[in-house]
Amino acid sequence: MSERRQPVLGVLGGGQLARMLALAAAPLGVNTLVVDSSADACAGQVAPLVVADWTDYAALEAFAARVDVVTFDFENVPAETAHWLAERVAVFPAPQALAVAQDRLAEKTLFRECGLPTPNFMTVDTREQLDLALVAVGAPAILKTRRLGYDGKGQFRLREPADADAAWAALGAQASKHGLILEAFVPFERELSVIAVRGRDGDFRIWPLTRNWHVDGVLSMSLAPAPDIELLQRRAAELARTLAERLGYVGVFALELFVRDGELLGNEMAPRVHNSGHWTIEGAHTSQFENHVRAVLGLPLGDTGARGISSMFNWIGDLPDASPILQTVDAHWHDYGKQARPGRKVGHTTVCAPDAGQLATRLAGIAAALGRETQVEPVLQALD
Amino acid sequence: MSERRQPVLGVLGGGQLARMLALAAAPLGVNTLVVDSSADACAGQVAPLVVADWTDYAALEAFAARVDVVTFDFENVPAETAHWLAERVAVFPAPQALAVAQDRLAEKTLFRECGLPTPNFMTVDTREQLDLALVAVGAPAILKTRRLGYDGKGQFRLREPADADAAWAALGAQASKHGLILEAFVPFERELSVIAVRGRDGDFRIWPLTRNWHVDGVLSMSLAPAPDIELLQRRAAELARTLAERLGYVGVFALELFVRDGELLGNEMAPRVHNSGHWTIEGAHTSQFENHVRAVLGLPLGDTGARGISSMFNWIGDLPDASPILQTVDAHWHDYGKQARPGRKVGHTTVCAPDAGQLATRLAGIAAALGRETQVEPVLQALD
Repeated sequence: MSERRQPVLGVLGGGQLARMLALAAAPLGVNTLVVDSSADACAGQVAPLVVADWTDYAALEAFAARVDVVTFDFENVPAETAHWLAERVAVFPAPQALAVAQDRLAEKTLFRECGLPTPNFMTVDTREQLDLALVAVGAPAILKTRRLGYDGKGQFRLREPADADAAWAALGAQASKHGLILEAFVPFERELSVIAVRGRDGDFRIWPLTRNWHVDGVLSMSLAPAPDIELLQRRAAELARTLAERLGYVGVFALELFVRDGELLGNEMAPRVHNSGHWTIEGAHTSQFENHVRAVLGLPLGDTGARGISSMFNWIGDLPDASPILQTVDAHWHDYGKQARPGRKVGHTTVCAPDAGQLATRLAGIAAALGRETQVEPVLQALD
Repeated sequence: MSERRQPVLGVLGGGQLARMLALAAAPLGVNTLVVDSSADACAGQVAPLVVADWTDYAALEAFAARVDVVTFDFENVPAETAHWLAERVAVFPAPQALAVAQDRLAEKTLFRECGLPTPNFMTVDTREQLDLALVAVGAPAILKTRRLGYDGKGQFRLREPADADAAWAALGAQASKHGLILEAFVPFERELSVIAVRGRDGDFRIWPLTRNWHVDGVLSMSLAPAPDIELLQRRAAELARTLAERLGYVGVFALELFVRDGELLGNEMAPRVHNSGHWTIEGAHTSQFENHVRAVLGLPLGDTGARGISSMFNWIGDLPDASPILQTVDAHWHDYGKQARPGRKVGHTTVCAPDAGQLATRLAGIAAALGRETQVEPVLQALD
């Protein structure tokens, strides 16, 4: 028999997403090679790690020679780096698709072209334009950098027009470099996300819609399949497919949505596996990580159906005591192997159950043991 | 916050069991370090690998200094190596427990002491003793090495006493080194295995019994929970618990059983995670790999209940086409990242379903696509 060569997946960025991609790639017989500027990037615990920054082209050249396809743990890889790599090796999602998701203006423009309404918005390049935008968009509103924002970073919330000076003091310096955008603050009823995947052959699938709760701009809890989504699931699937096809997108992406008066509004798109899809590891027939690996390597996509109902706790800053989780039926501990640090995503836990009642019981038990009643409360209300 | 140090699990042997242990350890925040004499041991694709043989004490000393606990991918690690390591670092299962499972005579003696009948057997050290044993045990019978056998290796089946010369020609040379044992061949109705786990605190659990089918001494298919085991599950749990407590066993082990006239007979014990427990990765709330890591590190054990019903295909020699599996709902591909080689275990696939009927449909579909009808046929009969 001839010598076998296993495919190698290259991942730009070595955080928990790269770590979970590598863990999903291994059973498929796919090896992973990670690039990160930090030698202690947590994905390096489960896959070989090349320590290099995004402009170290000698290191990137050697990296490209060792991998079959390149993908992203981190969507803010500089566009030049992504384009440079795409001339040497297959890169999915393609740098052009990534560029749209990196720019809030391009993203929202695309949403509207695809028939997905968005909150009102206006670009802001100067202090004067901020005043104009506040008139056009109204208050409350959120001033955001057009690029390089995530998890509520690079954002300032304005309650009233008089907050404009404070907003400009916080973000004005970034106007010339990254651009700014003022978005209307929408009093939404629910936050949902679509986790979707598109293969190299155009096959397209979405997982059941996920309902999300954020605290201080960072995901706190998810619940999937989101209750009462019969009317929204099909519409969300159509929108996500239209977007993906318009971009020629390959791989997993997340589309964050608001629900207002029963209608979907587009918030943002994340061109990668997403925190709100972590529940799919145990809660779906195929996880977002496995389907992303399959998609970028051109393998058939797996079934995205849910097994029962699942809810995810995000662990921010540091990890709680694992024991109550390890002792709960069908609860799953995910420690990313990171040092604790305020605001840092250091792990998550998914709790699965055959039905909403059993899920609520398991969640309440864990919350009580950990003193996390406040974190879990909105999920229990949604399950009630 | 103080610098965090993650626990490190050391694994002796770098095959697919070590590989799946490392993949299960990572979400628990446990890093893995593997020792194997081969630089291309497949576990080295997912965890750091120390290349050393079992007598390279300098390398083993450095290995012991880097890990918190040592366990086994391979039960035939020399007893001296295991004892030497146990003087330096926690080793689970303890070398004394391993020694019993390494010796078919000690193992069967223990089975009987624990109330588990076994097929008749007799030790054989010389050609003359083989004749005596054939009279005592009867034919058909199987001549086996007392130590270092697995997957049908080191075995010779005798249909009648006249086969004694051929059996001696095949295995007689090993009599002085490893010892031999002649076992009655039992016309069993079913082969079952118990996958069990015992924690450092004595907590003990078993997964639902697994029914197994072997071809040429190598596991071909598993089905779990095995149908019609209500009467046997409790008895098997009692036996496994008695054995584990007698040995002071810590970690996962497998107990292979025959069913004859509705009664259990002990075949052998594997002091490690086991091929017939691979279905637990997707088919149980906690996999054998995760519970083994938990057990040896002193973490609480996880629930061993099944989700639905599962069946495993073993891929021997080389891998089939993955596509039909990737396209089947709740079917899971496991490629160990090995080179193809006749008789080698190179991967497995677990197919899960909510009930026996759906499982049969999925299995039959995969078998038809791969031309594996013969392999799957006994499972379909058992599901019928």
